[in-house]
Parts: sequence; C-alpha cells; structure tokens
Amino acid sequence: MLTEILNHIREDQPAAIDRLCDYLKIPSVSTDPAFKEHCQTAARWTANQLSETGLETTIHQTTGHPVVVGQSKSAGPDVPTVLFYGHYDVQPPDPLEKWTTPPFEPTIRENRVYARGSSDDKGQVMCFIEALRAYQVRNIPLPVNVTVLIEGEEECGSVALESFVPQHADILKADIAVVSDTSMWDYGQPAITYALRGLLYFDVKLFGPSRDLHSGVYGGTVPNPATLLTRVLASLFDDDNRVTIPGFYDDVVDLDPAERDEWETLGFCDQVYGKSIGLDALFGEADFSTLERRWARPSCDVNGLYGGYMGEGAKTVIPSFAGGKVSFRLAANQDAIKIKQAFIDWFHANTPAGCTAKIEDHGHAYPVIVPRDSDYLSAAKRAVQHAAGKPPVLVRDGATIPVVSTFKTELGLDTLLIGFGLNDDNLHSPNEKFELENYKIGCLTHAALLYELANPSD
Amino acid sequence: MLTEILNHIREDQPAAIDRLCDYLKIPSVSTDPAFKEHCQTAARWTANQLSETGLETTIHQTTGHPVVVGQSKSAGPDVPTVLFYGHYDVQPPDPLEKWTTPPFEPTIRENRVYARGSSDDKGQVMCFIEALRAYQVRNIPLPVNVTVLIEGEEECGSVALESFVPQHADILKADIAVVSDTSMWDYGQPAITYALRGLLYFDVKLFGPSRDLHSGVYGGTVPNPATLLTRVLASLFDDDNRVTIPGFYDDVVDLDPAERDEWETLGFCDQVYGKSIGLDALFGEADFSTLERRWARPSCDVNGLYGGYMGEGAKTVIPSFAGGKVSFRLAANQDAIKIKQAFIDWFHANTPAGCTAKIEDHGHAYPVIVPRDSDYLSAAKRAVQHAAGKPPVLVRDGATIPVVSTFKTELGLDTLLIGFGLNDDNLHSPNEKFELENYKIGCLTHAALLYELANPSD
Repeated sequence: MLTEILNHIREDQPAAIDRLCDYLKIPSVSTDPAFKEHCQTAARWTANQLSETGLETTIHQTTGHPVVVGQSKSAGPDVPTVLFYGHYDVQPPDPLEKWTTPPFEPTIRENRVYARGSSDDKGQVMCFIEALRAYQVRNIPLPVNVTVLIEGEEECGSVALESFVPQHADILKADIAVVSDTSMWDYGQPAITYALRGLLYFDVKLFGPSRDLHSGVYGGTVPNPATLLTRVLASLFDDDNRVTIPGFYDDVVDLDPAERDEWETLGFCDQVYGKSIGLDALFGEADFSTLERRWARPSCDVNGLYGGYMGEGAKTVIPSFAGGKVSFRLAANQDAIKIKQAFIDWFHANTPAGCTAKIEDHGHAYPVIVPRDSDYLSAAKRAVQHAAGKPPVLVRDGATIPVVSTFKTELGLDTLLIGFGLNDDNLHSPNEKFELENYKIGCLTHAALLYELANPSD
Repeated sequence: MLTEILNHIREDQPAAIDRLCDYLKIPSVSTDPAFKEHCQTAARWTANQLSETGLETTIHQTTGHPVVVGQSKSAGPDVPTVLFYGHYDVQPPDPLEKWTTPPFEPTIRENRVYARGSSDDKGQVMCFIEALRAYQVRNIPLPVNVTVLIEGEEECGSVALESFVPQHADILKADIAVVSDTSMWDYGQPAITYALRGLLYFDVKLFGPSRDLHSGVYGGTVPNPATLLTRVLASLFDDDNRVTIPGFYDDVVDLDPAERDEWETLGFCDQVYGKSIGLDALFGEADFSTLERRWARPSCDVNGLYGGYMGEGAKTVIPSFAGGKVSFRLAANQDAIKIKQAFIDWFHANTPAGCTAKIEDHGHAYPVIVPRDSDYLSAAKRAVQHAAGKPPVLVRDGATIPVVSTFKTELGLDTLLIGFGLNDDNLHSPNEKFELENYKIGCLTHAALLYELANPSD
C-alpha cells in the first residue's frame, strides 16, 4: 500500500510541479500592506488544496493575515494525530533587479524552480499537501489523523498565531507536530533537526546629556552615551568570548559525548564554512568546536548600533543618546524568561553613572530539543529511508522557529523538523530556488511519514 | 584721542546696530549650494564695509565661497601689523519652526538681536569693522597696520582658506592675529582665550563576513563587526577614563599651579554646569577638575556609531561591517600628526582576528596656546578695561578654531582670541542671539585694541 502511494507521487510529479508553480505565482508578501489581498488569495488557494485532499478546511480571519486549518479525523482514536505546520507568506522580493527571472514568475532551470517562496516555505508546504493528495487520489484512507495549520505571518513575527494557538488548543490537539521549514544537511543528504536555539532580542539605549553637545566645549567632562555604550556592550563578553551575565550558562547542558561523536561523522569543515562567508578566521566561545558553538551553545550578538553622527564626513557631536540591538540565541534547557531578566538586571547594573538606560523587549522564544530516541523520530527516519533510499542525519539548528516552542508550551507537543531546503536556496535573498529533486523527496517523505507514524513498531 | 574714538562708538551705536541688521539679513549659509549667491552677496557687503572704513579691499574668488581681504598699511613700519580674522558665512537655520522670529529677519527684543549669525560670527566681525569705522569717521589715522581676512566657509570646514593662507602669506604677514569667534566668561565678564584644544577626527570601520548573516545560523561562530567594534572602542579607555593609546599623554604639559589658582577664582561650579545639560554626574579622566579636563587635558569621544540594523523593532542580522566616528581633542603641546599616527597604529594593532579595519582621516588641527605674559596680551587686557570698565579674565577653550593653528604654522603668528558671545547665544541652534551690550563692548574693545597695540609700553 505504501509502495502504491510512493509510486503515485513519482508518477504525478509533473502535475505536482505545476501546482507548486501556481502557488508561487501569488505574491503573498506578508510584511507589506500593499500585498494584503494577495495574502487572502494565498490563504484561499491553500484552503482549496487542503479541501481537494479531503480535509475539512476553515479559513480563520485574524487581526493580520488568515490562518488556514485543515483536518481529517477519519483514522480514529487508536492512531496518532499529527499537526503539520507551514506558512504561505513569503519575504519581500527586493532587490528586484538582482533576480534572473521575476520572483513571482516561477521558472524551472537545471531541475530547480526559481521563485520567491519556492523553498521558504510554499515548496515545503506543498510536499505535505501532495502527500495527502496521493492518499486521496488512490482512495487509500489516511493512516493517521491529520491537522494542517498554515499561517500567513511567519515572515513578520507570527503575531496572530501567538494567540491563535492557545485559543484553538482544542482543534489543534495532537500527538506530534511536523514542521517542514528547515534544510537538508547537503545535496542528497536529508536531515532531521532535533533541536533549535531560543531567542531573546532587545533594543538598548543609553541616555546622557539632555541635548547633543559640542565635543570641543564638553569633551572630557560629560558621560558620552556612544562611548559608554561601547563600554557596556563590550563588557558583555570576557576574554574567552563567554557571556559575562551572572548565571547565563547555569542551565546549559553539556553535549552528550555520543552526540559529539555523531557530529564528527558529518564531515563539517571550518575552512569550507569560513570560506563560504569570506572569513579566514572563525570566532567564538573558547574550548568548543564550531558546530557545538552553533548548535549547542548560547550566543550573543550586537545586531545593530546607532547614535550620534552617522553620515559621511565629520560632525563633532557628543550625542545625547546611543543605542544598539542585542540578541541572544539560547541553548537547549536555558530559560528564556530567566535569561531575559538576567540581561535586563545586568544592563541596569552596568549602566554608567550619569546615564540612564532604556531597554525595549522585542520578544523571546524558548529553545527546543526533542528526544532522539522517540518512536516518532524513528518513524521519521524510516520515512526518509523510504523516500531518499538512505537514512537522514540527525542535526541541530542554531536558528529559532518560535512556533515550535509555542507548540511545546501551549499544546505540549514535540515537533519533528523535517526540511527539504538547502543552505544555498537563497532564502530571503534574490533568486530563491527549490531543488525539484528535493521537492520529490519531500512529497515521498511525508507520504511515508503518515504511514510510519501509524506503525510505530515497524 | 582714544576717548574721542570710544565716545564716537557709543554715540553711533544705533547706526551700528542698523548696519549689523543689514548684514544679518543676508542668508549666507555656506554648506547649502542653494545659498551660493547669498554668500557672494555677503562677501560683497563685507568688502563694501571694509572699503568704507578706508581699507584697500579685494574679493578673492576661490573654489568655494570668496575670501575678503582688506588692508591698511598707512601706520608705517614702526608699529605692529594686526591680522583680524572672522567669517561671513552662517550655519543653516533649521529647524525653522523653532525660531520665534525668522532667522534672516533680525529682530531686537530685550536688548538682544535675534538672527542666524548674530553672534557667530557677523556680530563679532562687525565689532572690528565698527572700530575701524570710528577712526575713519573721526579722521584719526589708524595707530597700527591692519589686515582683515573674512572667509565664507568657516561653517563647512574652511576648505579654501587652508590653501589661501599659505598662498597669500606675503599679504597676510603680520605681528599678531586677532580672532573674535569665542565667548565672554559670563554676562558682564569679558574674557580673553589664550589656549584652544586641537582636533583629530576619524571614521573607523570593521569589516567581517562578506555579507550580512543570519544570527541564528551563524551566531557564536563568526566575528561580528558590531560586537567587536564595541570591544575595540571600549578598550580606548582604561578604568580611570584615560586613553590607552601608547604615548598619548607623553607631550601633555602639566598645568602651571598659578594657572590652576587663577581658574579657582573663576567660580566655576560643577553642579551648575551639569544642570545646564541635564546631568547629575559629570565624567572624565580621574584626578583632574572639570575645568582642567575641559581646557588642559586631551579627550576622546565616540561621535557616532552605525552598523547592522538601525530601524525600529528587530532584525536578527550579523552585519558584515560596523563603524564609528572617533575624535580627539588635543591638549597644548600634543603633536596632532604624531597622535594621529599613534591612533591609526593602535587601531590596526587592536583589530580582532577575522576582521579588517578601514580608517578614514577627517583632518586634524593643532592645539594652540599663546603666552599669557606677552605685550600683545597686555594690550588686549588694557583694551578690555577701557571698553568694559573691568579687566578680562583669562580662560582657555576646549574647542578648536583650526585657523588659529594655521596662522601659527603658516604665518608664525600668535592669536589673541577676544570674543563677545555668550554660552547661551544658541550658536548653531534656533533663536541665535547677540547681546547688544556685548556688541557695544566688542566695538569699544577693538577700537581700544588698535590703540593699545601701538602703545606696548603703556
């Protein structure tokens, strides 16, 4: 029966590519109000697809763009319910002049489809929809219960979803969540991601004199917020590039030696990694490998600096304030709220005399890690083996997908992160593309996953 | 004879105010090309005034706005030649809506004239011109030879003047320079400024990855130029707020104890100073008083910071570069070129691995200090006594007037800095004003100065 499904998907790929291209023609840019109607169109298009696959589908209007939910409970109470998450909205396509072909005219070259949203995330959403379609077309009942949740604000903060999930906890109730919004390890090497870092983001400002001052008349006598901001932010780190906030590392768990051994086999190369971003030297917390710093250690970055004179040439001003954007990536087991408070306390404690501090909190997301030995993960590994002819590697990701921690805290759900993108897919950049080979692997994987999740003992 | 001159000035004040107001009506904003013709008008107006006072006057066209030179050599070789410097250009008047009356419609309220340029520097230029006029009108020969140099680019870097002075060293040859572009110590208390700090100004940038990176994917593994710029700039200072560049203080001369005692009598109050700029706490190099840090110690300020995400809200980017504006005020006897090189060397030596540095040099000016016991200064003190009925206090200024060091290096001239502004004149701000009482004192002082410079033994 699984073989029939998988063969159907293989045969139906040309049609599946056409459907994906239809989806990609909709310029559902969520951040720009000018594209609001297109987001509605994309929501309706998504809902139609889900209906076609036999799901009971609802478009939920929100304060922002709609949330689409499709459901099938036909598999009954004895098998798991899987909650699939994706998003139909896309990043703005700018700068347009850097696209070889227009961002909303999907074009196939060298077995890739080039279009905004092809990899992030419409192509990956379609992998799941095509898997559902195969069961429907072949008239084979879905092996598990399915809820599909497709939002339209992932690229602008998932504002509506944050309240939508707890408000609809009853209909979203499931046993396991599946998210396809990550990458494979490499060409031909699928991956399952079992951990994400959390996120804290702040805007911090130091205020000094009540107005901008002449640096000749006042220089050397007054607290300069720009000078002092560099001092405060610099003191966030010690000589080993460790964050100095008291208690920051308390809850970070050491990497399991078995995990470290597994990562060794991935063949990650510092030189290749550095070269891809123009760097001769990498950087970070002492005594940890690059992969460990990236995946299993917290980090802190100044994402922006501003204040005083920022134009060309010279202006001899002592600015009345200066600011910066400061963010943290949190490693597994760190408590976002606890670290948030620790940073705020630290910043106030380190605010120099003569200055006042203003801290704006731009939100938080908890880190997530899922058990590497669960039945669900085993099912996912088997599904990938069916689809790609080889097992996935298990990886972490340094980035954050806030909905994954929302699922954990609001719905008590672990998430399987099975993604079919690639690091060179140009997400958020011109010439975004999705490999058609990966599209096929994605469709096959999800079809097999639905089967395997119903057969945990296989 | 001096009494006659001074009386004439007192009687002629209403007409002198009218002439000043005519000058102030010309919107000679030098930085904005839209006002180019007005700068020509102001140059012609200045030249006409100088001609009226009997000087041989030339308008020198330059690559920028014209330089006006007036000269009288009639006093002969046995008396000194004084070189008076001022500028006819003004700062832009923005923000216009904050002016009580329009910036180029001079208005008299409470015995002050409100207009852009009233204190900086047209009012002060007119003090000297009115002094010359008094001699002319009373048909009394000028006691000294006079060269008047009025430029039109002081508010935009004196670019043309920099080459004009050495190119015209022959006609600018003099024994002493006089500049009226500083302030009195307080209402009713004239001051002579005998030292200015020098200036170095840099734009520094750190470059890291070849493109902006996602802070989740890369955070903790790559050199972040924004983070590292804070570290480099913070390390410019030690815990005593002293600059850490090797050799930075080597040439700074200790303050003469007599000078320190003199400053004690000025009644400077840290609290009042702090309160005027909204500060509860002052700041600076340990073990020096506020006045000493301001006038006799070098200082370093970050005048601007920029890089990465500078807008509202959050963007999780590791920027490919970050930059800052860094300036130094140099104390008497520091060598601008030597410190410039020391900073550049220091910055390169402190550039973190994985980053490259780019330093833009935005020019330098040497500090200046003139002897407090010279005959010229004695003459100036006597002139102020004539004009104000009390002696001036001798002060330094933390700011920089580059032309003063140009006069020293190119012409070998010391400068008498006798200014009639006040700290609350709103220079470079809306509602700039000049006290008419100070205008009168200024005219009287310069008239008496011409007399006293010819009588060094008085």
